[in-house]
Amino acid sequence: MTKNDSLFSNDFLSTDFIMAAIQQFYQHRDADDSVSFNEIQKLFRSFTTDYHSIDLEKYIRHLNQNVLIHSTHLASPTFIGHMTSRLPNFIIQIAPLVVALNQNLIKTETSKGLTFQEKEVMAKMHHLIYDFSDEFYQKYIQDHSNSLGFFTSGGTISNVTAMYTALNASADCEGSRLKYWLQKGFADVVIIGSELLHYSFEKAADLLGLSFIKCSVNAQYQIDLNELNKLIERCHLENKKIIALIGVAGTTDFGSVDDLSALANIAKQENLHFHVDGAWGGAFILSSTYKNQLLKGIEKADTVTLDGHKQLMLPLGSGMIFFKQPELARQNMHHAPYAVRESSIDIGRFTIEGSRVANGLYLDTALTLLGQEGYEDILKHSLANAQYMANKIIASEEFELIFQPSMNILLYRYIPLQYRNKHLNEDDNKAINQANVLLQKTQKEKGRTFVSRTTRQTHLYPQQSLVLLRSVLFNPLTQTQHIDEVLQDQINIAKKLNLE
Amino acid sequence: MTKNDSLFSNDFLSTDFIMAAIQQFYQHRDADDSVSFNEIQKLFRSFTTDYHSIDLEKYIRHLNQNVLIHSTHLASPTFIGHMTSRLPNFIIQIAPLVVALNQNLIKTETSKGLTFQEKEVMAKMHHLIYDFSDEFYQKYIQDHSNSLGFFTSGGTISNVTAMYTALNASADCEGSRLKYWLQKGFADVVIIGSELLHYSFEKAADLLGLSFIKCSVNAQYQIDLNELNKLIERCHLENKKIIALIGVAGTTDFGSVDDLSALANIAKQENLHFHVDGAWGGAFILSSTYKNQLLKGIEKADTVTLDGHKQLMLPLGSGMIFFKQPELARQNMHHAPYAVRESSIDIGRFTIEGSRVANGLYLDTALTLLGQEGYEDILKHSLANAQYMANKIIASEEFELIFQPSMNILLYRYIPLQYRNKHLNEDDNKAINQANVLLQKTQKEKGRTFVSRTTRQTHLYPQQSLVLLRSVLFNPLTQTQHIDEVLQDQINIAKKLNLE
Repeated sequence: MTKNDSLFSNDFLSTDFIMAAIQQFYQHRDADDSVSFNEIQKLFRSFTTDYHSIDLEKYIRHLNQNVLIHSTHLASPTFIGHMTSRLPNFIIQIAPLVVALNQNLIKTETSKGLTFQEKEVMAKMHHLIYDFSDEFYQKYIQDHSNSLGFFTSGGTISNVTAMYTALNASADCEGSRLKYWLQKGFADVVIIGSELLHYSFEKAADLLGLSFIKCSVNAQYQIDLNELNKLIERCHLENKKIIALIGVAGTTDFGSVDDLSALANIAKQENLHFHVDGAWGGAFILSSTYKNQLLKGIEKADTVTLDGHKQLMLPLGSGMIFFKQPELARQNMHHAPYAVRESSIDIGRFTIEGSRVANGLYLDTALTLLGQEGYEDILKHSLANAQYMANKIIASEEFELIFQPSMNILLYRYIPLQYRNKHLNEDDNKAINQANVLLQKTQKEKGRTFVSRTTRQTHLYPQQSLVLLRSVLFNPLTQTQHIDEVLQDQINIAKKLNLE
Repeated sequence: MTKNDSLFSNDFLSTDFIMAAIQQFYQHRDADDSVSFNEIQKLFRSFTTDYHSIDLEKYIRHLNQNVLIHSTHLASPTFIGHMTSRLPNFIIQIAPLVVALNQNLIKTETSKGLTFQEKEVMAKMHHLIYDFSDEFYQKYIQDHSNSLGFFTSGGTISNVTAMYTALNASADCEGSRLKYWLQKGFADVVIIGSELLHYSFEKAADLLGLSFIKCSVNAQYQIDLNELNKLIERCHLENKKIIALIGVAGTTDFGSVDDLSALANIAKQENLHFHVDGAWGGAFILSSTYKNQLLKGIEKADTVTLDGHKQLMLPLGSGMIFFKQPELARQNMHHAPYAVRESSIDIGRFTIEGSRVANGLYLDTALTLLGQEGYEDILKHSLANAQYMANKIIASEEFELIFQPSMNILLYRYIPLQYRNKHLNEDDNKAINQANVLLQKTQKEKGRTFVSRTTRQTHLYPQQSLVLLRSVLFNPLTQTQHIDEVLQDQINIAKKLNLE
């Protein structure tokens, strides 16, 4: 162990050179570098573990020269295409502490204080969603037989956990509930939600052996309630057991929010588990104003998914799931001789995952240093940016807005000169699709600015899939001039490409 | 946005006070503080989000005074009870960089260079496990249609992924393979492994609707091959479809390793998916000597689970799964319009999880700065410590060793005076069980040293479950005198408790 001693010594650890590397990375104003994937791939072809015996400073220099320059500049104010942005400084600064503590939230024996701290911060979030009485939280905040909620590795595992909970709660028996319902004579066991749900529900259905029935959406890109009622009726006729109804608060592509109150009523009437996927839009619970405007009915959900690493600006891997009734979490309890005794106060016995990092510490830091007030400012800024960009697009000749955004996600497309101000037929739209693919690809390759791209059916041309440009506005550094820059960059690229 | 501006400014970020807090935390020599759970719980009962408008330095002082003092001192050399230890300094130092980069490995658009870097470092690990030819790695290292392996949030999701892969590969059809096999007339769909497998396989079976058939173990705590053959035979007779055979390289409680070569042969003969859970012991692939001694046959596994956050000493959340044949990963492919196009080079289309942090950067740092050589030194030190502790226990009057450790996990128990050097009956063992529960509880509460506790059937008294003390030796800071200290602490506590 002598040669490794210095790697575990308790001498003062300098991170100045790390912070300098971060600063340098943050100075990139472009959204990306312009080196192609093919070129970058050539740099990463070594499959033997050669030990170079270099120190960390040297390694960071190597990273700077060979790896970081090719990393995506998510912090750039003109990178407005995905749900990944600049993080607040305090999150970056506190990271070494969270890593060094190395507390494993699976059990109290490896996370003494932080087990209780996670439960406290989960209660705070639960309170923001459900707003139950003081007595309720006094009873449950440190109750170890039940759970108000816990962290997961992300929205996907949160949504899987929610569907697993719904399935487990659907029948009062041991073992596979799927087999139980099939043996009871049901033709299928299903979950229902809008066609705009995140594809983690397809994964959840696939894992659990369920079928995911997709409902069409209305003109506001919300689940169509008439259609939904028909689908439920058909499930009854076809002898399909429905176990969960899913609402979404902020669809990935449109940012639209389902009518959560109406869904809650249908779920109640049909005796279904009601889950709300708030991975994107759930963050608006942090502002009581926006919560009332945008998330009405979320408090009626049996389970809610949030993603700390999206609009809450925590590090990646900060999914969360909440249980309206803390007893519901017991549906997923597991027992292992060494991990979870009956009287255990370990959080691990409720989770699908095992070992887990102390993400509660990041969230507590953010709630203390930013607070609801700070988050509200950022959310307000994001919504204003989205409205600015929408107006700008409407006022422009070059672009077409697909819908008035209800949150901070926008869909639009570039219209080449010859297709402007005229009725578009199917062939026209095909040509426009091609133009937008080329435009977004080129924009990405050039790397100055970035929006993403999706292909969706819209209410503008219901029979046809459109290629759309997708802008996600939540970087606090993005100002109106950066939005102008992104649109101007696209106009310039379109001109250069002769997209006419 | 004015009031939050400073939180996103690119001024030089100091982390000196964070590093000082880490230093302070690392100075604790005890394994834990001695404040009871009941007392700590009282500190975490605030469920409203009060914004205190304090800065990070003030917040860290608050953490130091109220939270960190109650955190488990996993870095302490006398904390030898769980799979969580001190991390190397470079991992702590590089953490802010990984967090600041915020690259999301789900897609190349949010992790340009690091997508290729993860594939490279996965190839290095794949090479250590499977040792295929140069041509093989040249072909697959950057192949985006297939996958050599990827990170998950932990061993549990890796094992779930492996079972999901096996299930998907079991039938050439779309939709639920479970339903497919049941409709084909099979009575059940099952996975088989030893009764000492990690409980993540119960979770995996539960999620996927499978049954987990547990096989008994031999005197070396390896899966009993005769019993296994009988179980397989019985499955055939009872018309149960077996989809996977699981071997473990390092059981959680015993550190024992199944006869992987024999299991591979049986799997081949029966045409079953063969998975090896190397979450604990898989780390020994880093030493060719130990790999040959301890992990023979691991290279025959269709899939292998490793956990970076155990013996590889990466941050929590660093599970990995590897596919012997990279084409196998295609079984789990998902498609979403915005996330994964057919021609996509995104890693995300193979993973159950969605958004993912750049854990490959931590692993690459460790492989460069520690290297195989550094890891081998640490593993050697750990095995020597385990042997030292085993010998010490055998030579002692007070303790009984349950088995000669094959790795760095030990099981033993305290024998009160009146039960030494005599034949033990059932009542005696019950009394000894109670004594060991009390001993370990008190040791944990006092907090000077720590080992964990489990309840298992052993070959010493096959009819009876024994309460056992469990020591996990892999903290590089643990020296022989610390092991002496732990055992002496237990003897002292036993005396004080009058465990005679």
